[in-house]
Amino acid sequence: MKLAISGKGGVGKTTIASALIKVFAAKRSAVYAIDADPDACLASGIGIPDQEAQSIKPVVDMRDLIRSKSGGGAFYVLNPKLDDAVEEYCYRHGNVWFLRMGDVKKGGSECYCRENTFLHALISSLLLDKGEVVVMDMGAGIEHLTRGTAKGVDMMLVVVEPTKNSINTAHRVQEMAGDLGIKNVKIIANKIASEKQKQFIAKSFPDGDVLGFIPFNDILWANTMESPDKVESGRELLDQIENVCQKIEKEVGDLRRD
Amino acid sequence: MKLAISGKGGVGKTTIASALIKVFAAKRSAVYAIDADPDACLASGIGIPDQEAQSIKPVVDMRDLIRSKSGGGAFYVLNPKLDDAVEEYCYRHGNVWFLRMGDVKKGGSECYCRENTFLHALISSLLLDKGEVVVMDMGAGIEHLTRGTAKGVDMMLVVVEPTKNSINTAHRVQEMAGDLGIKNVKIIANKIASEKQKQFIAKSFPDGDVLGFIPFNDILWANTMESPDKVESGRELLDQIENVCQKIEKEVGDLRRD
Repeated sequence: MKLAISGKGGVGKTTIASALIKVFAAKRSAVYAIDADPDACLASGIGIPDQEAQSIKPVVDMRDLIRSKSGGGAFYVLNPKLDDAVEEYCYRHGNVWFLRMGDVKKGGSECYCRENTFLHALISSLLLDKGEVVVMDMGAGIEHLTRGTAKGVDMMLVVVEPTKNSINTAHRVQEMAGDLGIKNVKIIANKIASEKQKQFIAKSFPDGDVLGFIPFNDILWANTMESPDKVESGRELLDQIENVCQKIEKEVGDLRRD
Repeated sequence: MKLAISGKGGVGKTTIASALIKVFAAKRSAVYAIDADPDACLASGIGIPDQEAQSIKPVVDMRDLIRSKSGGGAFYVLNPKLDDAVEEYCYRHGNVWFLRMGDVKKGGSECYCRENTFLHALISSLLLDKGEVVVMDMGAGIEHLTRGTAKGVDMMLVVVEPTKNSINTAHRVQEMAGDLGIKNVKIIANKIASEKQKQFIAKSFPDGDVLGFIPFNDILWANTMESPDKVESGRELLDQIENVCQKIEKEVGDLRRD
């Protein structure tokens, strides 16, 4: 099962992605956690020290390795569980395999088109074993959608908060994910502080689109002044996300099989 | 004077950019307000109805007009105050001229490299009259910096909130803006709810780098369920930003001259 997490900047994509990864890691054989935002912090969200995360090579640098091993397209040989050569592109944390799309570059050097193109090819071709899950934390906004980076995922999850702007972005994401042929596009409502906010989001989407409403208190840790890896995201959040995970499995038809 | 506003997703870039635009509009002859994020909402932030903003052509489509008028590089003929032909690329709102970088595109169609390249060329070449200001609201994250979209601005303003992650992004932006040759890179601290948060941000940057600390209450409107154009950003926020504007003018050496 391959999932991508998107949404407007600041809605809590990385918080939600981290919680999904933790919950799937507890019930699945392996989770590939992919940071698709060069300005992101997924590693620390799932408890990997920043320095360790920065020490692994970004997947975009895998290209030469692929060429040398397969002469081209056959990405599945790169399954890190089967191939030691891939180790330097992964940071293993329990049964979570962390990968990152690209490095921070110099100002004025180049765009991230190459990284996005390669990540798309990699994710599309990755053959998962039973019980394995990919969770990709996408960059803020809509460019990863016009680029088609997450084309081929089983579900696009759009995180919203109770603001008109984040809901506008979610509607754009739904439409653009449709352009990419992604059939399952669902919403996770975050930072809900009142019944009014819940209703506001509920009525902004068709029935059944919103997989969960995550209360405001639980994500307060994201607003912390500590390094996120020092802060527990809290049992309550994980319980709520557990419920979301079950709905995702049901929607995608990918129930636990390991 | 040309300014660009950047920072991590969700820190309040558009809130701060909108307030800067309103304050400069009250004291300057003209403000060019440029939305450089295809997923952004600067128009509604400064009181332009979304529908009106969407009705103008994005600046990336100006290319043919430029070719037909000048055969190439001479962008200054496109000053909208001097040239009626540019009118369809601007929405005039008092003495604010609103422009947007690009349209929302279909999923999987293409990146926004073309838009960013063109915007950079346009901004670099725009000759401002005395007293005129450009305020560009950049996309979340760091890709506009690796692309060099804002190269040539007089100052890059980085908005932070009291979170470790947004400060990490700001440090990256400072370094990358330096790569672009932007000498003035300053910080605006947003969503400050306590003295501890203020000190946390103050000690994260060298003395003099933080131009202002904006209290949390004032930006609550951004968390609204109403359309942002229906919500007043509040006199208090504008007063604080007035103070920031004076520091910007002093740093850039561009004091009111109209």
